[in-house]
This record gives sequence, C-alpha cells and structure tokens, in this order.
Amino acid sequence: MKFCSVCGHTVTLKVPENDNLPRFVCENCATIHYSNPKIVAGCLPVYQDTYVLLCKRAIEPRLGYWTLPAGFMENNESTEQAALRETAEEANAQVDIRKLYTLTSIVHVSQVQLIYLADLPKPEFDISSESSEVRLFHLDEIPWDQLAFQTIRNALRFYIEDLARGEFPLHCVDINTPPGVYTDPKN
Amino acid sequence: MKFCSVCGHTVTLKVPENDNLPRFVCENCATIHYSNPKIVAGCLPVYQDTYVLLCKRAIEPRLGYWTLPAGFMENNESTEQAALRETAEEANAQVDIRKLYTLTSIVHVSQVQLIYLADLPKPEFDISSESSEVRLFHLDEIPWDQLAFQTIRNALRFYIEDLARGEFPLHCVDINTPPGVYTDPKN
Repeated sequence: MKFCSVCGHTVTLKVPENDNLPRFVCENCATIHYSNPKIVAGCLPVYQDTYVLLCKRAIEPRLGYWTLPAGFMENNESTEQAALRETAEEANAQVDIRKLYTLTSIVHVSQVQLIYLADLPKPEFDISSESSEVRLFHLDEIPWDQLAFQTIRNALRFYIEDLARGEFPLHCVDINTPPGVYTDPKN
Repeated sequence: MKFCSVCGHTVTLKVPENDNLPRFVCENCATIHYSNPKIVAGCLPVYQDTYVLLCKRAIEPRLGYWTLPAGFMENNESTEQAALRETAEEANAQVDIRKLYTLTSIVHVSQVQLIYLADLPKPEFDISSESSEVRLFHLDEIPWDQLAFQTIRNALRFYIEDLARGEFPLHCVDINTPPGVYTDPKN
C-alpha cells in the first residue's frame, strides 16, 4: 500500500495512538488502513459415504492439482452461504451441509479456512471456469500426491479416520509454515 | 474507496472479467481491490464454572455496556492466539482455552465472530484502555439489559443452558438483521 484509498495522499507506516501494531496511516485525512485475515470457505462433499467430490484446478495457484470446492468469503453472506456458493460455482454441485468440519488458521498467509462436511444427494456436478475436471473419488482412490493444499489433505484424512469411528468432530488446526517446509497434517 | 492504494489513480466500481460481483478496479494499474469479511475473536472466560468475566466498554460502539473480551483478528496470528491476545489486552486476564464455542456470521456488517470457551484459573484481571471495569459475574447476576451485543447475549445464554446439560457443543448462528430489528438469539 502506497496511497490512501480515501483521499489519494501517500500513506505512512506507523503505530497509531492507542495501538501497538504498525498500520498504514494517511497524514492528510487521518484514515488508518487496517489489514486483516481473510476467510476461505468451502465444502467436503460426500456421496454415499465413501465417495468425495474433488475439483481439478483450472487456475493458479496449484493449477492442475485436485482440491475441494472453496474460495474467499464475500461481504454480506454467512460462512455457510459462502461454502455453498463456492461449491455451486466451482463444481456446479448442490449439497446439503452436515456440519462445520475443519477450521484452519493458515498463519503465514493470514487466512482462516472453514470446510463444511456436506452431503451430495445426487451424483450431479460439472466443470466450471475454475475447475477443468470435477469427479467423485472413492476413498481408496484419492490422488494424495496430486492434492493442491495441505488443508485439503487434512480434511480428507480426517474424514477417512472419522468415518471408521463413526464420529465427525470439528477439527481445529494451525498451520504456521509454508508448504514444503513441514507437512505434518496436524501442524 | 476512491483511489487505488497501489498507484494513487482513481478507481471504478465494476464487475471484472471472470467475476460476478462489482469490485473497485484501477484502470491505470489494473489492480482489483477486494473487500472481505473480518474476523472478531474472543473468549468467554469462566471461573469455577458459575462465574463469567465481563468487561465494561470504555470505547464506542456501546460505550458503558458489558461485553466479552474480543476484537479484530490481526494478520499472522491464529484464531486462538487472537482470542487470547484480546483477553489479555482488554481484561488483563490469562485464560486456558477449552474449545471453540460460538461461530456467528453477522451478515449485515460482514463480520464472523469466534468465541472460545475458556477457563480463568485464578480470579486475576484488571481494567485496560478498552475496559473501564472488569469483573466476575455469577451466572445469576448477569446484567442482561446492559450487554453490548447480541452475540454476547447468545454466548452467555448458551453457556447457562449447556452447563445445566453438561455438554458444550459448538453453536453456529447467523445474524442477518441490525440490532433492534429482530433480537431472537437464534437468528
């Protein structure tokens, strides 16, 4: 950030009065510009318990890798609405949300990802501008080495473990390191 | 938003290519400026099961009303770290997080609020620049008509109900209407 989005004056990085973190401050109109984490919401769509719906990414980052339908939450919607919207947009699938399943703080990129466990009532879905391929994978056929993100690996691994136990608790995970540095799904 | 924060040029509100919502777009440097919901994180600090720690707000909005320690999540922290930091900053209290307790989408102001159920091991706390008074309230003494926000009323009501049952599930709530219009805690 170099310019004030309110008045167009240049901004200065400094700690405002009664604050303890540096912010971009406009010396002209006194606006303080805050930057905060963004929410990514999506679904883990399950069909007949043992199939999951994955999307092959048609866009960067991780183009060509498989992911769950998920994306940035928009203003003036709920987290569930965001997850359902992303599932409709990316996979052309209508799902029924069962419960909030994973909450992941991806600390180094300032994102919080919410994945809802959802049921796909019929095997109906389609490609989209963001997904070059959309298909159901049996849990025994998940392309583990072709998954786009650690959060996706985690959600699928949790689901397989939880299905065996018959319990699907909320999983809260913090990820503090960039991909490739440390890949334990629990951290 | 009137000016591009990257180059200082005026921005135009329009739907970018491959998008379906209007964004502020810079016609000079082509930057698309997205606006997304913000996360508020905080704690419901419980002492000896039947006392809760509340803070009297020393700042607007709702100055003089009682609230739980909570505030905007910062970049490069986890949701739990944000909740603990806000509890330390606003109530000068060190708590142990038990679990994520409420997730509320406050749709009309584009906020998602996360409240963690937490234990206050010792009755140690203090006022701060944001809290003119900090004190423990017995569950029978909660100042219901002096609470700052609907999300705070909800969290306290859930806790009282759950304590009676001995189960503390995650409560997910959507609030779609401004305060005063509709005050059912479930919506």
